[in-house]
Amino acid sequence: MKTVAIIMAGGKGERFWPISKKDFPKQFISLTKSKLTMIQLSVERIKKIVKNDDIYIVTNEIYKNIVYEQLPYISKGNILLEPLSKNTAPCIAFATAVIKQKYKDANVLVLAADHYIKNVNLFLDSIDIGIQNITKNNIITLGIVPTRIETGYGYIELGKSKKNNIYFVNKFIEKPDYVTAKEYYDSGNYLWNSGMFLWRNSFMEKCIEKYTPELYKMLNIIYNNINNSNFTSILKSQYDQIEAVSIDYAIMEKVDNIMVIPGNFGWDDVGSWLSVERLQTSDINNNIIVGNNIVLNSNNNILINHEENKLIATLGIENTIIVQHQDCLLIMNKDNCSDIKQLIDEIKNKYDKYL
Amino acid sequence: MKTVAIIMAGGKGERFWPISKKDFPKQFISLTKSKLTMIQLSVERIKKIVKNDDIYIVTNEIYKNIVYEQLPYISKGNILLEPLSKNTAPCIAFATAVIKQKYKDANVLVLAADHYIKNVNLFLDSIDIGIQNITKNNIITLGIVPTRIETGYGYIELGKSKKNNIYFVNKFIEKPDYVTAKEYYDSGNYLWNSGMFLWRNSFMEKCIEKYTPELYKMLNIIYNNINNSNFTSILKSQYDQIEAVSIDYAIMEKVDNIMVIPGNFGWDDVGSWLSVERLQTSDINNNIIVGNNIVLNSNNNILINHEENKLIATLGIENTIIVQHQDCLLIMNKDNCSDIKQLIDEIKNKYDKYL
Repeated sequence: MKTVAIIMAGGKGERFWPISKKDFPKQFISLTKSKLTMIQLSVERIKKIVKNDDIYIVTNEIYKNIVYEQLPYISKGNILLEPLSKNTAPCIAFATAVIKQKYKDANVLVLAADHYIKNVNLFLDSIDIGIQNITKNNIITLGIVPTRIETGYGYIELGKSKKNNIYFVNKFIEKPDYVTAKEYYDSGNYLWNSGMFLWRNSFMEKCIEKYTPELYKMLNIIYNNINNSNFTSILKSQYDQIEAVSIDYAIMEKVDNIMVIPGNFGWDDVGSWLSVERLQTSDINNNIIVGNNIVLNSNNNILINHEENKLIATLGIENTIIVQHQDCLLIMNKDNCSDIKQLIDEIKNKYDKYL
Repeated sequence: MKTVAIIMAGGKGERFWPISKKDFPKQFISLTKSKLTMIQLSVERIKKIVKNDDIYIVTNEIYKNIVYEQLPYISKGNILLEPLSKNTAPCIAFATAVIKQKYKDANVLVLAADHYIKNVNLFLDSIDIGIQNITKNNIITLGIVPTRIETGYGYIELGKSKKNNIYFVNKFIEKPDYVTAKEYYDSGNYLWNSGMFLWRNSFMEKCIEKYTPELYKMLNIIYNNINNSNFTSILKSQYDQIEAVSIDYAIMEKVDNIMVIPGNFGWDDVGSWLSVERLQTSDINNNIIVGNNIVLNSNNNILINHEENKLIATLGIENTIIVQHQDCLLIMNKDNCSDIKQLIDEIKNKYDKYL
């Protein structure tokens, strides 16, 4: 059976301000050493397994032109434009309807547009195992073997081993506190929930039918109107009504037959500026330096200067994130990364045009 | 007898990079709440005592156009252009020759173009006392009553009182170490050397004759050639030969009859970015904020954004100096202010065009 990929690319991502902006979120910027943006890297990674024609991007329609520009080799018909952002469950339902219409049935690989994966070969190996184990009534998720105590991710509790390197999922768990995260880390019995899944399209349709009847109604209306000349407004009215809910909450936490493949491929959800430390290489003073920077007696910083004709000179600075992009400059203590939303709110009040 | 003022404005001042540049040093920029530059403030301050026609600016010829532009009310004939920077003694000799030629004799008030004075009325009172006490064979200097333990200034040891509020100078002392500076501060017997002096022009000429014969030769050649059509090249050849030396070293440390007037007028030599804290008012979090800044959970910083169309957002930053000016950005720990020359050297090696 054919394998198709859904890349979810609707995220808003204010957390990478000032490089990401409300009309230009994280998935469309470069945060690694590569010049490719996060979404370009996401597509490049799976090209060995999935043909361009079978790669679908789901994004908010406001990002339409950015996607067209960044992924010119993906046909416009494969770029599914959501009129509103209603979290991941409606996004999956939309894609499920489109895939059903086009392929009747297929194996589906669900990926995010804004994650980092260090070792692409190991990642593809995991997907390969996943594809081989898709049945007509299971869901397979890619779990990540924790490499640190991390409170920023959801977790998956491992159940019994199904076979070599595939386990049943006991349960999905929300982001834990530090003590719990440490227990998880020490026990070796928990994986990070990467949000990457594999399933048969027809099975996901059945799950949606069983667990979220409203969403199933929407799926059918989309399916029946894909070739309707009024499709855009039909879609809009469906999205207007549908509840915003995550696929984890709507489906994953309710389905019994979920398997997980533990992965060690250096996955990162790139959730904050701090994660850039895991994506790029530091100098001898543990500084990550991009662009024109003079750095003296300064350690443990992230220094990103995107302005080619400008110079940043840093003296005696520690543990700080400095990002110059277009007309904005962020200077943030690493320990305050989690407060960036507060900063964005402050900017909104007074300098909205810079967001 | 008429009083004329010499404002020495030849300083290079890399210490205020990136606002001051090698072709635009400190005396020509604004560092206070006022929009006036340091040299404009210096002239404004003494206008009540000295007429525009009697104010002389001595500067390097490379700053000619800046001075013309910033001080349009000072006639070009009063702007003395040094072909080379040879410290303060040649500068004084040049001015002494010009004043002798124009006035025969006069009381001379020597000031710096780049100092800050908080209380102008008290300052003018001190000058007034100074002028009243100039004789044909003394030098009067304005000393500053220390308000903190300071290792960045030279000191004057007080001798016996001559009369109310005027003392003989025991000696001039170079910048002390911290322990010595603390002794000076505690003893109450030392003043800061402000570098501001009063004397009769004819007496300075005699001092130069007596203590620095080479400089006296130059003074005479200048005096005899002021109206020579080749004056510029004559001056140049004199400056080529003359030794670079300070007026303190060449004259002050050798003259016996020096008096000092202790001043309390809030003087500051504005020697580093840190001194901006003494020139401007802080907000409730002890931040000095200029321009478009969003400041969150940040204390004890100096935040200067000169770019009107740019935003700086600061989060969790302490004790830091941030200056955005044109195409340069400085981010410096306050504790590292004294290392800024090292930083400038680093910039020189790689990004000279930004200096």
